[in-house]
Amino acid sequence: MQAEIISVGTELLLGRIVNTNAKYIAAKLADIGIESRYQTTIGDNLEHIKEAMAIANQRNDLIIVSGGLGPTQDDMTKQAVAEFLNTKLMLDKVQLERIKRRFDERGRNFVESNIKQAQYLNGSEILPNYHGLALGDFYRNDNGADIILLPGPPTEMEPMMNELILSVIKNYHLKYRLISKVMKFYGISESQLMSELSDLVGNSGRVSIASYAKKHEIWLRLTILDNDSDDAQIEIDAVKLKIAKRYPDFYYSDNIDETLAMVVVKLLKAKNKAITAAESLTAGMFQSTIASVPGASNVFSGGFVTYSNQVKTQMLNIPSLIIKQNGVVSEQVATSMAENAKVIMNADIGISFTGVAGPDSLEGNPVGTVWIGLAGLGMTVAQKLQFASTDSRTAIREKSVLEALRMLWIKLRK
Amino acid sequence: MQAEIISVGTELLLGRIVNTNAKYIAAKLADIGIESRYQTTIGDNLEHIKEAMAIANQRNDLIIVSGGLGPTQDDMTKQAVAEFLNTKLMLDKVQLERIKRRFDERGRNFVESNIKQAQYLNGSEILPNYHGLALGDFYRNDNGADIILLPGPPTEMEPMMNELILSVIKNYHLKYRLISKVMKFYGISESQLMSELSDLVGNSGRVSIASYAKKHEIWLRLTILDNDSDDAQIEIDAVKLKIAKRYPDFYYSDNIDETLAMVVVKLLKAKNKAITAAESLTAGMFQSTIASVPGASNVFSGGFVTYSNQVKTQMLNIPSLIIKQNGVVSEQVATSMAENAKVIMNADIGISFTGVAGPDSLEGNPVGTVWIGLAGLGMTVAQKLQFASTDSRTAIREKSVLEALRMLWIKLRK
Repeated sequence: MQAEIISVGTELLLGRIVNTNAKYIAAKLADIGIESRYQTTIGDNLEHIKEAMAIANQRNDLIIVSGGLGPTQDDMTKQAVAEFLNTKLMLDKVQLERIKRRFDERGRNFVESNIKQAQYLNGSEILPNYHGLALGDFYRNDNGADIILLPGPPTEMEPMMNELILSVIKNYHLKYRLISKVMKFYGISESQLMSELSDLVGNSGRVSIASYAKKHEIWLRLTILDNDSDDAQIEIDAVKLKIAKRYPDFYYSDNIDETLAMVVVKLLKAKNKAITAAESLTAGMFQSTIASVPGASNVFSGGFVTYSNQVKTQMLNIPSLIIKQNGVVSEQVATSMAENAKVIMNADIGISFTGVAGPDSLEGNPVGTVWIGLAGLGMTVAQKLQFASTDSRTAIREKSVLEALRMLWIKLRK
Repeated sequence: MQAEIISVGTELLLGRIVNTNAKYIAAKLADIGIESRYQTTIGDNLEHIKEAMAIANQRNDLIIVSGGLGPTQDDMTKQAVAEFLNTKLMLDKVQLERIKRRFDERGRNFVESNIKQAQYLNGSEILPNYHGLALGDFYRNDNGADIILLPGPPTEMEPMMNELILSVIKNYHLKYRLISKVMKFYGISESQLMSELSDLVGNSGRVSIASYAKKHEIWLRLTILDNDSDDAQIEIDAVKLKIAKRYPDFYYSDNIDETLAMVVVKLLKAKNKAITAAESLTAGMFQSTIASVPGASNVFSGGFVTYSNQVKTQMLNIPSLIIKQNGVVSEQVATSMAENAKVIMNADIGISFTGVAGPDSLEGNPVGTVWIGLAGLGMTVAQKLQFASTDSRTAIREKSVLEALRMLWIKLRK
């Protein structure tokens, strides 16, 4: 079974955005054992889309097109594919009503060009879009390659592709599939992890081990190409267990959708511990990350953003003498912030952040110097981190939040 | 002049990595006015590379291929292109010596397959690679499209492409280039903006106007293909001004790197206004966003994360009766939070957030209901937002922060 991925968008051709859609769709197809031998990118141009469809039609069983389903003049993928197939575009009245209602809700006038988003290829199966207004399409073509149309914005395309994959498997009676498991690591580098695992890589039976550097973390993917047998899962789990045992403080989840924050909030709930924070460097990012987890209100009721020294004294009663004597980026200030936040908020755990995000150094501390304080769980400790001074302001703040989560995660399990 | 970008790599087809090379090369070509009408991605496969070359050769003046120049068995781009051209591969002895020396320096035995990296197409111009071992190639083809071969690793390809662009300009005697300007909008939909601008689109002389939906905002790009004359810039600026005048409350910057938060912090600094916040819904995200701007400490010294009702009373002295009578997601609670935060922190402006991020509704308010309070600048107001209940928890919180920034931006300019 051969598939081709066609990405439509003049922005892609001009090099203004990276084509993450082709990667996402290719990975999903690879997961179910469908090879995509070609990826093609073209602009928002009727003739070019038709031309690309004609070429792809000759060499594939399935064509997945993303982009060009929106409401503007530029968006002409549906029309081009209809012309290529020599078929009509139909109007889905339910979707049209939904679009009009959306405009009403937001107090905006309905714009006529939005009708395009409710159109579909005659005879195709409509693919609902729960995160946007443009319908997708699954067109079974007895005279050529089947065609799937998906919207361009990743927030819309990705969930649709995710659901679609099940009906693709069913539609094509696929026998083989990739069985795989992801292991998520925080706090270890890709090169260290892979060099330490060199005894297992290529030496774990049918299980292949590959690493992927994600934002601030590393994922391993353990994979077997198999006929969905129970054995494959067992073999993967055995390798997973071996690796997990080696990295108790780095490997935190085998669930793609589970973040380190979710793992920490789950542990806090299980242990019935309330948390608060006093944030200087991160200025609310830690608390916002905790609150990004649904149900965080069970363990988090609020905290402090103490950006200036004066506010550290005003809100947290940190004596200005302590700040003066030790400097604001210090173990003493970090532990005092964590302890006082915990006491004032009557919480079980207080976390604090003080550091230098840049661009300038602070009181002799270079950019990237960070102290994280933790009070509670029977201890008061502070940990010093030194990030590379070439790290961006954002990276230093984000990694500090993740380091605090990892500290909590390690201590909460004990 | 037409170009095609061909990316070679099975990893790309499997969706294991994102194709950043195609974007980089396309952007460099666009900079000098070369349109790349197609981008094609294929695997490390001799026949597929030859097939893709044949198709590209028919429809282009120039083909840029990246990937597959390395030393492993998989790397076969040079061989495939030589076979397609029916020409020979030559050996560059200087490069071969360089490769051998590199192995010596690192105390490794020379591996025979590395000879491939010193090969080049007979009659081509060698492109030196200062960051890796594989040579690039520039092959002038009198019987078809010219061919450029570049290595796959971005650290090697990007500097080579950067240098190459000068000889491409020289080789093809290019006169024209794209002059363009970006306009960034927040708070208006792409379809509304483009339908309202329909009198200008296609009717602004040489200036073409295109829209791009970015995360939570819309960008317009005004473009002229020109010989870098001053006139082009003037014409673009004239159209920009026309559009800017229509959207004083939506168009916020023409600087790609400037966020709405930066614009707001700049205004706060210029007006010498100190800001604080009391965040329930967003739990610190607004303050963290303000602090993401370098130099934010001039206008921001700290604030409150008041997630639970109890903490709103404890930290902000909001009488529990007000919360009880009006509900926590209400105009009264939003304005009280903003006012009290401002007073307690001795700031000029207080901002507050209370709302329902989901997944569950709260006190009869559906998911997506948000109140933003603003105290200061001679007023106390609150604005109700109703996001779609299908928006994610994260989207509702992020958009609330952006709406507050837009409120501030509008009011600070007055």
